[in-house]
Amino acid sequence: MTKKAIQDQWSELDSMCWGCGRNNKNGLQLKSYWEGDETVATWHPQPYHLAFPGTLCGGIIASLIDCHSTNTANAAANKEAEKESGSDPPKGYVTGSLFVKYLKPTSVDKPVILRAKVKERKGRKITVTCSLYSEGIETAQGEVVAIQFF
Amino acid sequence: MTKKAIQDQWSELDSMCWGCGRNNKNGLQLKSYWEGDETVATWHPQPYHLAFPGTLCGGIIASLIDCHSTNTANAAANKEAEKESGSDPPKGYVTGSLFVKYLKPTSVDKPVILRAKVKERKGRKITVTCSLYSEGIETAQGEVVAIQFF
Repeated sequence: MTKKAIQDQWSELDSMCWGCGRNNKNGLQLKSYWEGDETVATWHPQPYHLAFPGTLCGGIIASLIDCHSTNTANAAANKEAEKESGSDPPKGYVTGSLFVKYLKPTSVDKPVILRAKVKERKGRKITVTCSLYSEGIETAQGEVVAIQFF
Repeated sequence: MTKKAIQDQWSELDSMCWGCGRNNKNGLQLKSYWEGDETVATWHPQPYHLAFPGTLCGGIIASLIDCHSTNTANAAANKEAEKESGSDPPKGYVTGSLFVKYLKPTSVDKPVILRAKVKERKGRKITVTCSLYSEGIETAQGEVVAIQFF
C-alpha cells in the first residue's frame, strides 16, 4: 500500500494551494509524509526557481517551509483528535506567522528535504519547527505558528 | 522619463530571481520603486497563486515581502554609499532572515501593494519592515534582516 501524503487528504476544493495542492498544476505540489513523530518531504526545484545562478530562491524556501509546517500542524491536530475520540473531526489550521533563517545557499539543482516537528500546542495555536536540507546539509530553519480557524 | 525599478538596476545575470528578476519568465517579476524614504510595489496575482479559493497563498506573500525588502536594503545601502562617496560602489545584500505575520486573508483577485522602510542599519545587517495591503487593508506584516555578502 502506498502511503498517502498529508496534502492528499484534503478535499478536492481545498487542494488548490499553490504551494502544495495536488489540483494546482502551476504550483509546487509539495507532499509531506509522517515518519515517526516527524514529517518529511522531498521536493525537486525547477531550473527557474533560482535566486541567483545556482541557488534556490528564498521565497520558494519560505513557501516550502510554510506549507510543510502548516500541513504538519493540521495532521498532528487531527491525529490527536482521532486518538482522543476515535472519530476524525476535521480541524483546520492556517499560518499565523512564519519565520525563516537562511543559514547557507541552497542549490537549485538538487532536491531539498524538509523535516518538521510540533514544538508546542497551546489553545488554538500549534508551533512547528522545520529544517530544510540540501545535499545532507541544513541550509534553512523555520518556525511556523499555525492557528485553528475551524 | 519613466522611473526605473530597483530590480531593473541589477545586471542581466543577476536578474534571474524567481521572485523579482526581469529575466525570469516563470517568476513573479516584482518591481519596487522609491517613494520618499519608503519603497512601494504593486503586484497582480495570477488566479493560480491561491491558497484556498479566493485567498492569496501565504508562500507568495512571503516571497513578495522577501524580494521587496531585500531589494530595499540593497537600494538603501547603495543610495547611502553614493551620497557618501559620490561614486556608486556595488553592494550586495541577501536575506538572512524573514518574518511574516498574516493578519487577515488576502484576496487573490485584487492587486497587492507593498510598502517597506529601513528600520535599522548595523554593521553588515540592514533590517527592513514591510507591510502588504489588499484593497487598502494591511493583511500581512514582514521583517527582513538582509546581510551584506560583498
